Amino acid sequence: MDPRPTAPRVPATARDLSSIFAPRSVAVIGASRDPGKVGHAIFRNVLEDFQGVVYPVNPNAPAIRGVRSYPSVLEIPDPLDLAIIIVPAASVRAVLDECGRKGVRGVVIISAGFRESGPAGRRREEEVVAAVQQYGFALVGPNCLGVLNTDPGVRLNATFARAMPAAGNIAFLSQSGALTTAVLDYARARGIGFSKLVSLGNKADVTELDLLAALRDDPRTDVILLYLEELTDGQRFIGLCREITGEIAHPKPILAVKSGRTPAGARAVSSHTGSLAGSDEVYDAVFLQSGVLRVDSVEELFHYAVAFANQPIPSGRRLAIVTNAGGPGIMAADAAVRQGLELAAFAEGTKQALRLALPAEAAIDNPVDVVGDAQHDRYQAALRAVLRDPASDGAIVLLTPQAVTDIEQIAGVVAEEARAAQHHAAQGGGRKPVLASFMGLVDVSGGVRVLEEAHIPHYGFPEDAVRAFAAMTRYAEWVRRPRTEVRVFPVDRGAAVDVVQPAPRGVFVRETLAFRLLEAYGFPLAPWAEAASAEEAVIRASAIGFPVALKVLSPQIIHKVDVGGIRLDLTAPSEVRAAYEEMMADIARRQPAAAVEGVIVQKMMPGVETILGINRDPQFGPILMFGLGGIYVEVFKDVTFRLAPIRELGAQRMVESIKAAQILRGVRGRPPADLDALLECIERLSQLAVDIPQIAELDINPLMVLPAGQGAAVVDARLRLLEETGVRGQGLGVGKSGGTADT
Amino acid sequence: MDPRPTAPRVPATARDLSSIFAPRSVAVIGASRDPGKVGHAIFRNVLEDFQGVVYPVNPNAPAIRGVRSYPSVLEIPDPLDLAIIIVPAASVRAVLDECGRKGVRGVVIISAGFRESGPAGRRREEEVVAAVQQYGFALVGPNCLGVLNTDPGVRLNATFARAMPAAGNIAFLSQSGALTTAVLDYARARGIGFSKLVSLGNKADVTELDLLAALRDDPRTDVILLYLEELTDGQRFIGLCREITGEIAHPKPILAVKSGRTPAGARAVSSHTGSLAGSDEVYDAVFLQSGVLRVDSVEELFHYAVAFANQPIPSGRRLAIVTNAGGPGIMAADAAVRQGLELAAFAEGTKQALRLALPAEAAIDNPVDVVGDAQHDRYQAALRAVLRDPASDGAIVLLTPQAVTDIEQIAGVVAEEARAAQHHAAQGGGRKPVLASFMGLVDVSGGVRVLEEAHIPHYGFPEDAVRAFAAMTRYAEWVRRPRTEVRVFPVDRGAAVDVVQPAPRGVFVRETLAFRLLEAYGFPLAPWAEAASAEEAVIRASAIGFPVALKVLSPQIIHKVDVGGIRLDLTAPSEVRAAYEEMMADIARRQPAAAVEGVIVQKMMPGVETILGINRDPQFGPILMFGLGGIYVEVFKDVTFRLAPIRELGAQRMVESIKAAQILRGVRGRPPADLDALLECIERLSQLAVDIPQIAELDINPLMVLPAGQGAAVVDARLRLLEETGVRGQGLGVGKSGGTADT
Repeated sequence: MDPRPTAPRVPATARDLSSIFAPRSVAVIGASRDPGKVGHAIFRNVLEDFQGVVYPVNPNAPAIRGVRSYPSVLEIPDPLDLAIIIVPAASVRAVLDECGRKGVRGVVIISAGFRESGPAGRRREEEVVAAVQQYGFALVGPNCLGVLNTDPGVRLNATFARAMPAAGNIAFLSQSGALTTAVLDYARARGIGFSKLVSLGNKADVTELDLLAALRDDPRTDVILLYLEELTDGQRFIGLCREITGEIAHPKPILAVKSGRTPAGARAVSSHTGSLAGSDEVYDAVFLQSGVLRVDSVEELFHYAVAFANQPIPSGRRLAIVTNAGGPGIMAADAAVRQGLELAAFAEGTKQALRLALPAEAAIDNPVDVVGDAQHDRYQAALRAVLRDPASDGAIVLLTPQAVTDIEQIAGVVAEEARAAQHHAAQGGGRKPVLASFMGLVDVSGGVRVLEEAHIPHYGFPEDAVRAFAAMTRYAEWVRRPRTEVRVFPVDRGAAVDVVQPAPRGVFVRETLAFRLLEAYGFPLAPWAEAASAEEAVIRASAIGFPVALKVLSPQIIHKVDVGGIRLDLTAPSEVRAAYEEMMADIARRQPAAAVEGVIVQKMMPGVETILGINRDPQFGPILMFGLGGIYVEVFKDVTFRLAPIRELGAQRMVESIKAAQILRGVRGRPPADLDALLECIERLSQLAVDIPQIAELDINPLMVLPAGQGAAVVDARLRLLEETGVRGQGLGVGKSGGTADT
Repeated sequence: MDPRPTAPRVPATARDLSSIFAPRSVAVIGASRDPGKVGHAIFRNVLEDFQGVVYPVNPNAPAIRGVRSYPSVLEIPDPLDLAIIIVPAASVRAVLDECGRKGVRGVVIISAGFRESGPAGRRREEEVVAAVQQYGFALVGPNCLGVLNTDPGVRLNATFARAMPAAGNIAFLSQSGALTTAVLDYARARGIGFSKLVSLGNKADVTELDLLAALRDDPRTDVILLYLEELTDGQRFIGLCREITGEIAHPKPILAVKSGRTPAGARAVSSHTGSLAGSDEVYDAVFLQSGVLRVDSVEELFHYAVAFANQPIPSGRRLAIVTNAGGPGIMAADAAVRQGLELAAFAEGTKQALRLALPAEAAIDNPVDVVGDAQHDRYQAALRAVLRDPASDGAIVLLTPQAVTDIEQIAGVVAEEARAAQHHAAQGGGRKPVLASFMGLVDVSGGVRVLEEAHIPHYGFPEDAVRAFAAMTRYAEWVRRPRTEVRVFPVDRGAAVDVVQPAPRGVFVRETLAFRLLEAYGFPLAPWAEAASAEEAVIRASAIGFPVALKVLSPQIIHKVDVGGIRLDLTAPSEVRAAYEEMMADIARRQPAAAVEGVIVQKMMPGVETILGINRDPQFGPILMFGLGGIYVEVFKDVTFRLAPIRELGAQRMVESIKAAQILRGVRGRPPADLDALLECIERLSQLAVDIPQIAELDINPLMVLPAGQGAAVVDARLRLLEETGVRGQGLGVGKSGGTADT
């Protein structure tokens, strides 16, 4: 599957945030003379580096740090682009009015005491939103740490973090202000450079979506880091991130920590799909469909960011390892295998070059062990050989500080060979990242400095380097994935509307309605018919063909099995008749109050039992589920989720991603299942989910997938429609089959 | 299941390694005047700290670093305990002879050029072994980095690592010398103290077992770290580690990195058990049965070691988190849930105390958020409250450096409250570890120093602190596990020997032999009989009871299904007769050359399909496997392994540890399975594996487990005996049912 060019999409115009990121003049409202106060720290930080003009605003101080202070922005004699507000929450609205009258375009509210702090705060935040609407501010916060831009023409540190980080190509958006301080401190010590940093706060106006659009267009940003606790709009997030990570001229990787992974509490859901689609699974789906690499910790965020910010993404997953010690080499190789990487199998010419350059006791297979007494010459020869080999996609260099190891020189040749590899790539080879782990801390520190200056990402432990390389390959595969579209099938939407419109809301509807809805959308159903008597059941069964099942039809009977309302594998008319009569007798005995309308007669279907489902998430819209049925879903929870709509490739990836996928490919003498039919069902389900927004939950369980070429068949389905109020003004057919979709 | 005291075992006497660890005099043979040489570095290192006498030995130098040199150890006028040898490999044997004549007791050979470097090296290593036997040395190496002991009465740094680490209670044994240098460097920078450190090298004499026994008895060692590439003796390793980690008066945790996790290459095995028991799975079993915590990287090794070395192990897994920022608190809570920890649910009194001490906007549920402007008073009150709550088993303190955060004072109160908690514990409460993560690097460094000095383990990121806490709870659970014994069932060993003795070797034997072997060991078998004609099959089936299966008996037919040699679910005599005749016809057509001896008639059994197996590992002896049969073993590889023999608790843990265990407990309306019967089968299999060492591979597949109270039934079994040469002198019955065993 070669990458093929896609039609470029017109990028949505980003909102103008220039007043936030590149103001010419800034007022710090609530600037303080007291060095222990945030209002002092922020003014000091802006003053220290800012390339424009900064005005302290404080009615009680003539000057702050020697700079003339103003009692109000209205007194500032010059035009003002940006206001940083640190006054108590109760005074913010008045300050905003002054800013509005002053013609300020950008506002950052540091102050807390808004939505996060109860009803009074919530009202104050509503006032902030009203001021935004009134004056047209771009407003960051409230309840945030501030914003920071290292652009040499701006150099704005409007945060209370203690020092400006180095300029770099990494942007960081964080929903936790506190975390931002730690991150800045960590980055400063590690020499990690940022382009921009924004603490999102309560997102009263500017959201992660506005900022992502701005970062998409920011030539100083190559890598975007996110720390999120929730998303503003899942579908727009997916659309924008897909564009940034894969569709623009120079795609930018996005790495995200989404905290709050603990399982969602008890929720009022009764379908499989609903009960399994915890918020974390939905976020996993969102990130997967966005091309965003989800990571588990801030540490990983940095480890990966440093790799992406400094090295090219590889063309494949074939890693070369060069080491001066066996143990770390093995550990790196183990980690590589665990991460799904391959150890590059070197060409004979490469091995010959290694044999010539290295002593007899060296290992010339991957990992290449240049042996404990190696100095820079051996490292250089080995690294050059493995990087020039077309069988490798990148290299990790490991070093342990031995008696004669010339650590800084080795760092120098690593940098040199990494550069040479990029030069080589420019002449037609693939681009090959080089990462390093010089183990230890004190002895290797000089070498580490040389590496960092040369933009060779360095990791304290080999496993971290390997994980970073693996993250790069995952992103590379995302960028190079084949682009597919959302297939739109001809369906009978009118018939579907006719089913849904009069159906009861908020409860599971009778199975026959679910069947008719699925038929309207072109799903293959196991042949079925209704029958109101034993005689009719026999006639229907004979028409359908044996073996058949009987399932009782009664609005009062929820758990059919418990009352004897299901009979399977009936192979002859006499069995059907007997089963019908027994069933009615059983039900009359076990649930005498149930009004029985008859039965569904349905053909028994062989094949692999799968489950497909829709669950409508209040925030993200329809979620699709796929898994193998029965034990697999119930015990192993071996299911996967995506937001609808889903593209062709997305449906394929769903099927491939479950652990039991092998069963569909045929095991234990079973023939391979009809994957084309299964994929079509998943894609039709996506279309249905988008088209009919009244669907709250739908389980197709099971969908029997027959052997290849023989199709699939819906055997059972449970459908619940949203309460009338749940549709929230969405008329029928407002869905958008062709919108944002998966891979 | 409360812990119950076990009869103390008589600890095996450790080998005397005092000449290695606590010599009064040391000769450095091959000491060099050249500062670039290892022979110089080691002499310098010994000289610098050693509390005894050190003699350089070098025939070509009158003195090294001002110390009089001797041409040979024989010239040294005083008694000599330990010789460190750095001369070229070819000269080592001569030097050893001189050491022997001198009466040296301990030897460390640093020099490489032995077993690791081809046939000539291997011969040289044999000479070293011969010298050990001749002179009775305790010998470490060759091809190692050396040994190190920080005991203030000794202070021996006989390594070429650049500086002596701090004294501490952690011992480190490493099979990678190079890694040792990195580890020392890392530890030095982090202020991590060691008791002893040994680079194992080629293990020509002293092995990890000798050293573990010495460390067991070493009062200066509380935590043992291992880096291993292979084990010398799995069974002895298990026995010794179980003793150290759980049976001695003050058990010591052992943490191990075992590298070489990549899957074993193609191996000549044909059973399920054999094909699934890769070396890594076997090592997992060894570590599990040893009480050794296996970790994936040197970084984890350190993270956990610091926790174990400085804090008590907790009584349970209920973690309290105190933070000054929401984001990191959520991240820690997420990590805790992922690690199987619980968030402590505080008592009302605790919440009341927190309400009193903290501002209104603080979060008083776990994680406790003391809010961004918190200073040490709030941290102290919060930490005290959560540590005093009986609902918590320990705490993690998180800090982000905010504007007013008094970081060092906070570190101080964390230390104070951790100490108070230990004091509290001494008065009857449980012991509660306190770990910390002060995020960032520069700003928090002062606080981190305070923490480290107070023995509060510190981690750069919250997740690492959580993982360390989780490792402590895992170890705590190991120490407190109920002790069980290996059950010995009355079996008919004579009958088993009669089956095995005359059976063919190296091939799969006929099923009837496997059945008889299992019957001799008291396994329940699905009722079965042989039949040589259709008529006889009908008679047997009627005696057994319907439904039955027929399986062809023919030594030439390996894959019975492929030739129509299996007929299932036969419910009447007529069906048996017809099936027999069809089967014979099919086989005559499909495999006419096969000599057919008749069929096995076997009762069809309901129940849950499980698989049990034995695979004899050349190094570790019999390995037991358990899993659910069919798809579960083939697709999900949902199986678990243990070395035989296995104790009662070990068998339980095997059953509990598979993902599909829930199926045995009853799902989808199925009754719970007869776990007692299953456990007894696993334990009988263990006894069989130990008693009959000729078994190379045995699969019981399936063992049908019936509903609770109804037992289990072996349906199929495949048995292969070792080639005659494979038994290597082990007579029948040399197994040791009561020996080393699992949990």
